[in-house]
Amino acid sequence: MSKGLDHETLNENVKKVQYAVRGELYLRASELQKEGKKIIFTNVGNPHALGQKPLTFPRQVVALCQAPFLLDDPNVGLVFPADAIARAKHYLSLTSGGLGAYSDSRGLPGVRKEIAEFIERRDGYPSDPELIFLTDGASKGVMQILNSIIRGSRDGILVPVPQYPLYSAAISLYGGSLVPYYLEETANWGLDVKNLRQSVSQARSNGITPRAMVIINPGNPTGQCLSEANLKELLQFCYQENLVLMADEVYQQNIYQDERPFLSARKVLLDMGFPMSKEVQLVSFHTVSKGYWGECGQRGGYFEMTNIPPQTVDEIYKVASISLSPNVPGQIFLGLMVNPPKPGDISYLKFVQEGKAVLESLRRRAHIMTNGFNSCRNVVCNFTEGAMYSFPQIRLPPKAIEAAKKLGKVPDVFYCLKLLEATGISTVPGSGFGQKEGVFHLRTTILPAEEDMPAIMESFKKFNDEFMEQYEDYGGYSRM
Amino acid sequence: MSKGLDHETLNENVKKVQYAVRGELYLRASELQKEGKKIIFTNVGNPHALGQKPLTFPRQVVALCQAPFLLDDPNVGLVFPADAIARAKHYLSLTSGGLGAYSDSRGLPGVRKEIAEFIERRDGYPSDPELIFLTDGASKGVMQILNSIIRGSRDGILVPVPQYPLYSAAISLYGGSLVPYYLEETANWGLDVKNLRQSVSQARSNGITPRAMVIINPGNPTGQCLSEANLKELLQFCYQENLVLMADEVYQQNIYQDERPFLSARKVLLDMGFPMSKEVQLVSFHTVSKGYWGECGQRGGYFEMTNIPPQTVDEIYKVASISLSPNVPGQIFLGLMVNPPKPGDISYLKFVQEGKAVLESLRRRAHIMTNGFNSCRNVVCNFTEGAMYSFPQIRLPPKAIEAAKKLGKVPDVFYCLKLLEATGISTVPGSGFGQKEGVFHLRTTILPAEEDMPAIMESFKKFNDEFMEQYEDYGGYSRM
Repeated sequence: MSKGLDHETLNENVKKVQYAVRGELYLRASELQKEGKKIIFTNVGNPHALGQKPLTFPRQVVALCQAPFLLDDPNVGLVFPADAIARAKHYLSLTSGGLGAYSDSRGLPGVRKEIAEFIERRDGYPSDPELIFLTDGASKGVMQILNSIIRGSRDGILVPVPQYPLYSAAISLYGGSLVPYYLEETANWGLDVKNLRQSVSQARSNGITPRAMVIINPGNPTGQCLSEANLKELLQFCYQENLVLMADEVYQQNIYQDERPFLSARKVLLDMGFPMSKEVQLVSFHTVSKGYWGECGQRGGYFEMTNIPPQTVDEIYKVASISLSPNVPGQIFLGLMVNPPKPGDISYLKFVQEGKAVLESLRRRAHIMTNGFNSCRNVVCNFTEGAMYSFPQIRLPPKAIEAAKKLGKVPDVFYCLKLLEATGISTVPGSGFGQKEGVFHLRTTILPAEEDMPAIMESFKKFNDEFMEQYEDYGGYSRM
Repeated sequence: MSKGLDHETLNENVKKVQYAVRGELYLRASELQKEGKKIIFTNVGNPHALGQKPLTFPRQVVALCQAPFLLDDPNVGLVFPADAIARAKHYLSLTSGGLGAYSDSRGLPGVRKEIAEFIERRDGYPSDPELIFLTDGASKGVMQILNSIIRGSRDGILVPVPQYPLYSAAISLYGGSLVPYYLEETANWGLDVKNLRQSVSQARSNGITPRAMVIINPGNPTGQCLSEANLKELLQFCYQENLVLMADEVYQQNIYQDERPFLSARKVLLDMGFPMSKEVQLVSFHTVSKGYWGECGQRGGYFEMTNIPPQTVDEIYKVASISLSPNVPGQIFLGLMVNPPKPGDISYLKFVQEGKAVLESLRRRAHIMTNGFNSCRNVVCNFTEGAMYSFPQIRLPPKAIEAAKKLGKVPDVFYCLKLLEATGISTVPGSGFGQKEGVFHLRTTILPAEEDMPAIMESFKKFNDEFMEQYEDYGGYSRM
């Protein structure tokens, strides 16, 4: 007789989940690392793991919140600046027992208020702290919203392809149906509403009701920044089709061009006025893991709800209560992110310099990487306008595709495994994000240290040259 | 046409969830607090919120990990002891980029190793770090395991009644069936295997297959500590019935009597020898939120798997990967909990004194509270042998039950609301945990500061006297 945790009797949805970012490539990279090989982990947007230093001021504040007894230590001023001490006292006053006490399941009211003020400054419209929920990283919030929406396999969620696999994985886990809509690689990964319409009608003809749509802006893995016109079109589309818009805006600080600054879906929606501004259901996500913070390990995220009925908000609150509260240090980081030092504060200049250095270096790295990929044989790559990733297309020769098939591997997995073995560069195959049939990509972050970047791109180029040499001898390519 | 987050179209399982710990009573208490009333929150086991101070050494270590630049500061020795500095360096060396980097989705390998060593010391059997997964608090782990087991409404999970509502809520959320087994109030909330057998056969006759069984030891809300004989019986039962045992052992350090020290389900299982020691599937949970740590807000938990097939472990790893990694500071707290200062360390004596003071005070508070309740009219209460709660039975007069029904309230909710309005004491009605038909309880934590305890019990007694006075005038009681 079988037992509850025997593999064959597990929840089928659990087994169906695929999660490429930590899939076969990551596992092989971990093995190689154990064997002593130097691995460059570019599979996850994890800046501190690749040498980015934390911003000093927020870390000082959170360290003091962790060690509140230091606030009475006569020597504290020797190691912490006065504005960090003042901010630590401020955040401790917002808790009901310091970092060791559960907060309200939605997060500390005082931090939610600071976030609402930040959103108002950003968008020009007031925001209600009661509609902002803090979470252990943005992913947990995305999962909770999907779990609320999805009732079964006939509920569809529109997801961009290529997409960040959090979405496909969570939709599988909750037993829903992913409805893909393709981004246009030849239009710099732009979003075409015609594609959306096609996807929706195809889903309907398969008996699936699209109930929500995901956008990732700036894009992951594709790096594009959506224009105001594009955002208006897709909001109009959500309005017509009664879709909840889930706006993954975790890269809103990561912009590497000046033509299209970040615009939140919420601002564009509210600019569109009545009736849309009161009708479209919107959930927007943000985090301390990205931007120039990169505080991934702290797990601080939030979501803000717009036009969600109060009864639904109550249900979401109730479900959040089951796991009691998001981690409190991560909440303090969120407060600091939305309310950073101001001109005149002791720590202001240092904070601004540190942040600027990170962002400017990321911008330079985006260029180095895109140019590097485009200088390689059979590789084409759109410029990383935002976010933290490069998503080059690899035109694999037919012989390489055959060789992969012989080994039972998806062709891009085959390529990425060979890249890993040859160079230690750990990427994620494009098939983990979705791509058009017969077209192959890989995703890498732009996060390796700037000084290492030229050597990494050179090592990639050398590998790719040899790979193409080996498999290209009778000429054909995979189609664009 | 309805929209994806309209209340009537939400996932029904989300709507079915009930979570009393932060339910009607908590919401009313929060309102009263906003209006300026002094509230004593005893609804959640949240020690720091009621004045318990954090242990100094772990907070020093984590503060230094948050501010690694201090390790190079010549003044650091003025505010931090040398062993805290050494431990911070140790934990930072286990990360791949400090607290700001995602860890492996199972947690830092170095911390999992420390936990395995702790388990081996505790149980006398080696433990495998690869079978230990760290989580954002124990609740998240419980939810992940239940989500793996439950396939639909015909899958049953045996849960003690009274129970901690995490279990009922998560089972509802994942669409399974809760199969209750009653604890015996008259036998100090002991577990009777006869009751288990009855519950299982009744479930089977309703078409439900029990697949797992939950024990909470020491008990929440009931406070009992299971004896070795009792643990053997129930493990035998799990073996016979092919049930996964989920052992919630988060209160293993909270023991207030000397007759029955804590024994882990794992130790008892392995003591029982082959075949059982190789056959019973067991998942054990622990946390930094309880014990004498009470670091609830840090959200550090783990689960350890025994006899779980490797393929299943892989699936659980994959699903954990979707949300990338548990928060890293919480992982460091876990490391510190299982590997505290040793005799001879600079911080040893202070650490031991702080921990002992908390536990001894909790033991005294357990007595004050039990005695206080038992001195009240129509209130009877078993002694809190362990954990952090008191669960007195309130014998409500028929007139009170009628008055409650007139208001559409469950009688114990009615009683607890009146208690809250009169005294500010925020408890959870027994109906939130489950209880036998016609019997009423409330749960309170034993966590209010020791010096406040006499006044709180007096205020309770005064309220209860007046309540009974008001409703008791024609003599009958609710039955025992």
